[in-house]
Amino acid sequence: MKTTSCGKKSKGELTRDKIVAEAACLMHKKGFEATTINDLVKATGLKKGCLYFHFSGKDELSLAVLEKAKADFFAFLDSLLEGKTPGDCLNNLFRGMQDAQRDMGFSGGCIFGNTALEMGDKDENLAAFVRGVFDETTEKVRKVVKAAQVTGQARKDIAAGTLARHIVMAIEGGIMLTRLEKSEKPLKDCMDSLRTLIGLKK
Amino acid sequence: MKTTSCGKKSKGELTRDKIVAEAACLMHKKGFEATTINDLVKATGLKKGCLYFHFSGKDELSLAVLEKAKADFFAFLDSLLEGKTPGDCLNNLFRGMQDAQRDMGFSGGCIFGNTALEMGDKDENLAAFVRGVFDETTEKVRKVVKAAQVTGQARKDIAAGTLARHIVMAIEGGIMLTRLEKSEKPLKDCMDSLRTLIGLKK
Repeated sequence: MKTTSCGKKSKGELTRDKIVAEAACLMHKKGFEATTINDLVKATGLKKGCLYFHFSGKDELSLAVLEKAKADFFAFLDSLLEGKTPGDCLNNLFRGMQDAQRDMGFSGGCIFGNTALEMGDKDENLAAFVRGVFDETTEKVRKVVKAAQVTGQARKDIAAGTLARHIVMAIEGGIMLTRLEKSEKPLKDCMDSLRTLIGLKK
Repeated sequence: MKTTSCGKKSKGELTRDKIVAEAACLMHKKGFEATTINDLVKATGLKKGCLYFHFSGKDELSLAVLEKAKADFFAFLDSLLEGKTPGDCLNNLFRGMQDAQRDMGFSGGCIFGNTALEMGDKDENLAAFVRGVFDETTEKVRKVVKAAQVTGQARKDIAAGTLARHIVMAIEGGIMLTRLEKSEKPLKDCMDSLRTLIGLKK
């Protein structure tokens, strides 16, 4: 796909973006398998041929949806993991992930967790992609936990990598329950207990 | 549905059980929405009319599948939460949940977590049912954590209910990752960090 010389997106790119955005919305709501090319024709108002001009099929489109979600999520995660001290960064993370679910009306959950559950046993490409997202997330969190251990803001008797993995897992479970209950409480409790369990100090 | 006077299951009950078992298998593999009545006709070898004699439709059948899964899971959970001391019970829980995923070949995950993610926003009946399973599970774990706090086998600075909820959430997240990686490691790490985080003593 070519960008125009002035740096603006070409018409083709804008169409591609639109397809990905509509597919993301449908796949998040209905799941990957239940979303059909006909659903996309209806949602985008484009002809089937146009969809196939941009994507070879649902597999390529699903990956494009996840690529976009990953870029958005990492931009968000990086913004949360900023703060004066490593302890502040972790607090921002806990608070920010909680706020994000509330802002979504406790609906939809985590697209990577959803993909893991829907496609984890069925599609090795999507599973590998989501594994990569979780690994990269854990590594970003690990670095901050490690820094917090150095400044004495987190317990040191558990490896930073183990704590980071625990944080990621607990948050995934917390998002699941908060969505199921349509209430902030499970995720808030999850963040509060994470703070206590990792011995987070300001 | 009538049982015969000798206590054995009637032919009708056996047919019903067979439908639920095949539906459970299909729904666990394909998800609730993607499983059709035609899939069930194929899997059971029964006629459509026979399926509708036993179940008014997919909604009733989905609930029957979850009811059966709940009964099986609570029998399993209760067997794990037995031990000489409350600390032993918690260790059995961590070990048993880990072994169960390995025995399933790290495939399929947790049917209640899957249902929460697939149907949490779509079907209030199924969502309410799964919420009930998580609540009951948390309450069973809470009682054991409370007992472990009394015997000095678990930390006391966090309420037993909060610790229990954290355990349930972390295990759900751990099952998701262990299934995604097709490896025991994420869930084993999860259980190890849970032991340390709750200060579990033998």
